[in-house]
Amino acid sequence: MIRPLIWEDKQLKILDQRRIPWSVEYLLCSTSKEVEECIKNLSVRGAPAIGAAAAFGIVLGAMEHGSDSKDYFSISLKDKAGSLMEARPTAVNLFWAVKRMLKKFENIKDNKIKEIVKGLEEEALLIYKEDIHANKKIGELGAFLISKEDKVLTHCNAGALATAGYGTALGVIRSAYKQGKKIEVFVDETRPVLQGARLTAWELKEEGIPFTLITDNMAGYLMQKGVIDVVVLGADRIALNGDTANKIGTYSLAVLANYHKIPFYVAAPFSTFDLSLTDGELIPVEERSWEEVTHILEKRIAPEGSKVFNPSFDITPHNLITAIITEKGIIENPDHNKVQSLLKES
Amino acid sequence: MIRPLIWEDKQLKILDQRRIPWSVEYLLCSTSKEVEECIKNLSVRGAPAIGAAAAFGIVLGAMEHGSDSKDYFSISLKDKAGSLMEARPTAVNLFWAVKRMLKKFENIKDNKIKEIVKGLEEEALLIYKEDIHANKKIGELGAFLISKEDKVLTHCNAGALATAGYGTALGVIRSAYKQGKKIEVFVDETRPVLQGARLTAWELKEEGIPFTLITDNMAGYLMQKGVIDVVVLGADRIALNGDTANKIGTYSLAVLANYHKIPFYVAAPFSTFDLSLTDGELIPVEERSWEEVTHILEKRIAPEGSKVFNPSFDITPHNLITAIITEKGIIENPDHNKVQSLLKES
Repeated sequence: MIRPLIWEDKQLKILDQRRIPWSVEYLLCSTSKEVEECIKNLSVRGAPAIGAAAAFGIVLGAMEHGSDSKDYFSISLKDKAGSLMEARPTAVNLFWAVKRMLKKFENIKDNKIKEIVKGLEEEALLIYKEDIHANKKIGELGAFLISKEDKVLTHCNAGALATAGYGTALGVIRSAYKQGKKIEVFVDETRPVLQGARLTAWELKEEGIPFTLITDNMAGYLMQKGVIDVVVLGADRIALNGDTANKIGTYSLAVLANYHKIPFYVAAPFSTFDLSLTDGELIPVEERSWEEVTHILEKRIAPEGSKVFNPSFDITPHNLITAIITEKGIIENPDHNKVQSLLKES
Repeated sequence: MIRPLIWEDKQLKILDQRRIPWSVEYLLCSTSKEVEECIKNLSVRGAPAIGAAAAFGIVLGAMEHGSDSKDYFSISLKDKAGSLMEARPTAVNLFWAVKRMLKKFENIKDNKIKEIVKGLEEEALLIYKEDIHANKKIGELGAFLISKEDKVLTHCNAGALATAGYGTALGVIRSAYKQGKKIEVFVDETRPVLQGARLTAWELKEEGIPFTLITDNMAGYLMQKGVIDVVVLGADRIALNGDTANKIGTYSLAVLANYHKIPFYVAAPFSTFDLSLTDGELIPVEERSWEEVTHILEKRIAPEGSKVFNPSFDITPHNLITAIITEKGIIENPDHNKVQSLLKES
């Protein structure tokens, strides 16, 4: 089983995803700052995984108090929470998890510090376990949408590595495969950071699920040829109307799938919904360093001084999404009313 | 001036495009086999450039005769021509140029060998010069389609490097820029071989034309944001109905441009039209080695043993093309009748 995060001996072990597929190494975090750094430098990435990591970051922050003053403890914890929330701007799971941890803190803040730390640890472990549970449920529900010999296109990595474990889009794929469906996965390499080529291909290989790696610009050709039956990918933030922020390139795939009348599914847990945003235009899109584009594996591929634009995400409007697969149900042709009613039911 | 091919001292100097942007080095070819190898290994690439290089390859082949037997000379030349034509399958300019050289040979085959070689050399130089002339004319005509502050998206390299000089799509961009238009070019990096990041960015930097480099999957996002005004790119083979084979990813851009109502222009000389094919489905699409996808600059980016699909080109149907810019005129909303009538006029 692939475990991107391991909470052990009051420390967080983070699988260094920058080194996959070349090696499998864990980074040991014993401070909230170290967790924050791992989120910033992409050692841990993927919206649900970032959320779970940040929750453990809060626990580590609480363990660092170094004083018995409750006032100082509270100020210090909130400061660390604020800092963690600034690590990356697009995936809402980060804010969701940190806010949930702070809410827990509010509920138990009158206890002794030792008990508060224990309470926070329990909450982080709950977030972690709930995410795996949600993923498995997403996989189970989503597998109904995959037919027995489907060619499934996915983009970036929405796998075990992107979550507490199991995966959202890859959770759907895993479940379909486990049911004996003879699927084949087409994996977009996903420039610039190559999460598809490095991470998704690695996960699928580990599980023995047949896959074919392509460059991002080949997906349209495969759709035109009638090869792709269905697109399944993850999300970093979903607005109340169903508009979805996900890895750059997702929007292009949605337009292409729409043109070729291919079902386009987003798989994500409830923690990815942002209840404060009415539509996708309000989702902040992170821009990352130009070196991600001009360099690959530290080697320059473009002339020196090339100007670069490097948005990490794009926003797919809900009308291009066939359905959103959540742990509580599938939202077909998502819109404001349908998203609202599923969220309220739960 | 960028010169991908230099015919000098009865030898062909080929600018090694595999080494750009890191270094500018010429490979010296004195046999048709060496030219063939340069075409195969992408030292020279781009449909018109391949055509011109192959023409010089025929001259070198004729110079290699090593015997005064006319029969042997003819057999040997045709054998070399056949071998050159097998170097790459998609760009029709290769076959066009070799066939034109063989036609020239038929016309002068009763002369002495020395005179035949001279005649073939003249024909190759004519192909070379005509291509530069065609490019400049394409640039001149195409520049009318570019408005004064346009943001122009291009894919792969259809520049001086892809032709005898000046370029087709980049010829249009060069001409518009020379007219004082304050354009900005958005350059798709063009995986797997990175002709955009390596070659187009290098050409634009050399000329001081403002450009921004993006990964291929960012083009749709820029279109959605209203940043891109027009798409201009080259072609490797155009069928009689206007269907166009070009670098993989072109078709996706055409669908995206169509969805966003952005003009989508193909710039190509007459030598890129294949008069024998009624539509694009008949164009053979080259598949290249899996290492182009699994490795970047010789470093592996995917798990070992990953299965890969690597088509080098795709076919864009004519109904997604706003216009084809040729040296003889612009074919708006290209179809069989319009392409036919322009070809006949000339």
